[in-house]
Order: sequence, then C-alpha cells, then structure tokens
Amino acid sequence: MLVRPRNPLNIGAAARAMSNFGAHRLRLVNPYGVAFREARSAVGASSVLKSAEEFKTVADAVADCALVVGTTAVRNRALQHPLKRLNQPTGNAIRKRLQTSRVALLFGSEKIGLTNEDFSHCHWLLNVPTQQAHISMNLGQAVAVCLYELARGKPEKPTPNKVEPATAGDVEQITGALLEALRISGYIKPGTEAMFEKKARRLILQLNLEAYDAKLLLGMVRQVVWKLRQGGSHEEKQ
Amino acid sequence: MLVRPRNPLNIGAAARAMSNFGAHRLRLVNPYGVAFREARSAVGASSVLKSAEEFKTVADAVADCALVVGTTAVRNRALQHPLKRLNQPTGNAIRKRLQTSRVALLFGSEKIGLTNEDFSHCHWLLNVPTQQAHISMNLGQAVAVCLYELARGKPEKPTPNKVEPATAGDVEQITGALLEALRISGYIKPGTEAMFEKKARRLILQLNLEAYDAKLLLGMVRQVVWKLRQGGSHEEKQ
Repeated sequence: MLVRPRNPLNIGAAARAMSNFGAHRLRLVNPYGVAFREARSAVGASSVLKSAEEFKTVADAVADCALVVGTTAVRNRALQHPLKRLNQPTGNAIRKRLQTSRVALLFGSEKIGLTNEDFSHCHWLLNVPTQQAHISMNLGQAVAVCLYELARGKPEKPTPNKVEPATAGDVEQITGALLEALRISGYIKPGTEAMFEKKARRLILQLNLEAYDAKLLLGMVRQVVWKLRQGGSHEEKQ
Repeated sequence: MLVRPRNPLNIGAAARAMSNFGAHRLRLVNPYGVAFREARSAVGASSVLKSAEEFKTVADAVADCALVVGTTAVRNRALQHPLKRLNQPTGNAIRKRLQTSRVALLFGSEKIGLTNEDFSHCHWLLNVPTQQAHISMNLGQAVAVCLYELARGKPEKPTPNKVEPATAGDVEQITGALLEALRISGYIKPGTEAMFEKKARRLILQLNLEAYDAKLLLGMVRQVVWKLRQGGSHEEKQ
C-alpha cells in the first residue's frame, strides 16, 4: 500500500517488485494523480499496476485488513508504536497472519514517509535494518526488500486455533464511538480532537482485538454514547 | 559490481542500496558513459557513487577478489556453473568469505543480464527466488535485495525501549470504571452484573495494556462515568 506516492517510476518499481515476489493487491492512498496515470500507462505496466486500487484515506484503504504494518526508516523517534525490524521472525509473523486474513504493508511518500496520522492506523511499525548513517531507502527498493523477506521460506502450517481477528474497519468504528463519548463527556477539549483521534485509534488498534471482542466493545461504547446523548438532551431541555 | 549498466537511475539506485546496507566499493565494467556521468553528477550522489571505479573488462574488475559471484534471473538454462539461491545459508557463506577477502557480486545490464563470458569469471551464480512468471527484477531492486540478505545476521542489540506493563491493579481499576459506565448507561441489565463483570475483566486483561495506555484508558472511562453521573443527577432533579 503506497501512501501519497509522487514518482511514477517508484509506483512502477513497487508494482514490479510485487510481481517478482508474488504479491497482488496494490493500493494507493491519495497518490499524485499525474504520477499514477503515468505509471499505469507505461509500456509493460504489470497486471498488478493495472488492477491497482485508489483510496482517499488510509482508513478506507486498510478497512478490510486484520493487520496493518507501517514501514519507517526512523528507529529512535519517540514512537508510541511497537517497532520491529525486518528479519526472518518478523517475516514469519506476517506470513502467519496472511494465511487467514489480509495484511496491509504501508509505505509512505518518497520525501517524508508515513505521518503520525498514518501510523495511528498501524498495529506496529516495521524497520528495514540499514546503516545508521544511511537509513533512507528508495521507495521501490524498500518494497522489494520487504517483499523478498515475506516471500521467503515455505508457508507455515495454519494454526489449528482459528481466532477471527477484528478488521481495521471494526477498529475504526470503535474509535469513532469512543471519540464521540469522549467529546460529549468533555474529555476532549476543543482544538485537541486531532491529537485524541490518533491517540484513541492507536490505543484501540494495539489491543489486537478479536472480532468477537470488537463487537462486544463496540456495543458497550455505543450504549454509553447513547446514554450520554440522553443526558445532553436533558440539559438542553431545561 | 555493475556490468554494462545503461540507465543512470539504476546506477544511482545501486549506489543508494550499497549505502543503506554498508557496502562501499562500487565498480562498473564498461558502463554506458553518458549514464555513468549523469548518475555521478546527480544531486545528492552518494560517496559510494563518487568513489566508484571504472574498468574495461570483468577480468580487471574482479582481479583482486577471492570470490566472484554472478547474479542471474535464469534458473534452468544449461548453466555450467553451480547455482545457489539467495537465502540465509548463502548469505552466511558469502559473509564468511568477506571476513578474510574481497568478494565481487556481479550484476548484468538491464536488458540481457550477464553473458556466458561474464559467468566464466564467476565461482558460482546467485539467483533471487522470485515468482516463476516474473523472474526479471529491476537492477536497483535486485542489488537492494542481495545486499539486504548479506547485511543480515549481525546479532542485533536488544531494543533499549523497555515497555512497562500495566499491573493487575490497573486493570481492575479500569474494569471497575467500565462496569460503572455500563451500569449507568443501561448496558448491564439487573441480575446480569456478575456475568458482565467477568466479561469486562477478561476483555481488559486480554488487552495486555502497557502502563501508559492503562492510565490513558482509565482517564477516559472515568471522565465518561463522571459525565454519565451528571446526566443522571439531572434526571433526578426533574
């Protein structure tokens, strides 16, 4: 999943690496329109590129994914997200999830990478171990290296215990309801909504909810919101 | 080592991957002159690119190397050379040689790769495992993937980032506040409290909260409870 890519060559390179390593679904969030059209119309554009989907927001693009992983070159910023290095164990962990559900791997724009807002949609972050003095990778190369690691090895046997994970869409619903409750109850002060939105989304995502628990939690929060609204209407009536 | 590269962007990309993964000596055999000059004069050209050496023949370029490995996309041609796949054992083998001597990793031109003449200078050949239908990799991406594998394996230092987990006491406080919110909002019907208490505690426990997030969540739920109580007192007053 490429977030705000600007360069048609990089979009094409990402698609090519996907073909090389057997990944199929390319999604672009808010790409630079000219770049996307140019990449798509290039001679020899792959079927991956031709079937690429475009989304307006990260939330929409990851809605059907049970695991969302953001890539970052940075290791030491005060990240509030778990950070894993790309290696065989990490690859195994992602492959395992891929057997039962969709996994989104997010790559940011060439210049600035992913933003904190983008990160807030991620369960955890992934870093390609590079030299400390040269941490910034070319977008197409970063995609290639990550997919090489994910394509490695034989698929592991599926775990017998089949727990259905919550999708990013479920998480977004809970986050929305929670924010509503926090707004009505005055926890969120005017002007701080954007910060709390990120905070709340990160919190809910990292709970790694199962689908069942997500439903339970959503029901709870919605009931609370309903009651809070009742309280509000009383006040207004007075 | 790039043999007959034609595209300045690919030369630049190869150099960038080398910087990322700690390789220093870029050698070009018989490059397309314009491409090499263009890559070298590009804004932000790396020190790897600036110190790149140019050779007329593969023989000259590999003369001081104790192991010469040629990369190839092809797996089934009647190769008279041993062929290894890029993976951790192969990476280990190359790394071992690197401790005592120079190793050359040869990449062919974008169009046709390495020739049989080039192969004749190689001890063995290396293949990046790709999908059978898409074996041809972009040059810069192939370099990145190979160097990623070679850079792997140094024991990684454990992350200093020590995450403090929430205590059972924290969990219990959140559970209590959540139950209070659910009672006031009517989610919990009379007579079902015991069941919901277990349900809520299980839910919160399984979140495996960190101490920081536990505090955040407790603050949120407490504020909601406070607001719900305000609403309730309004009703009583009426």
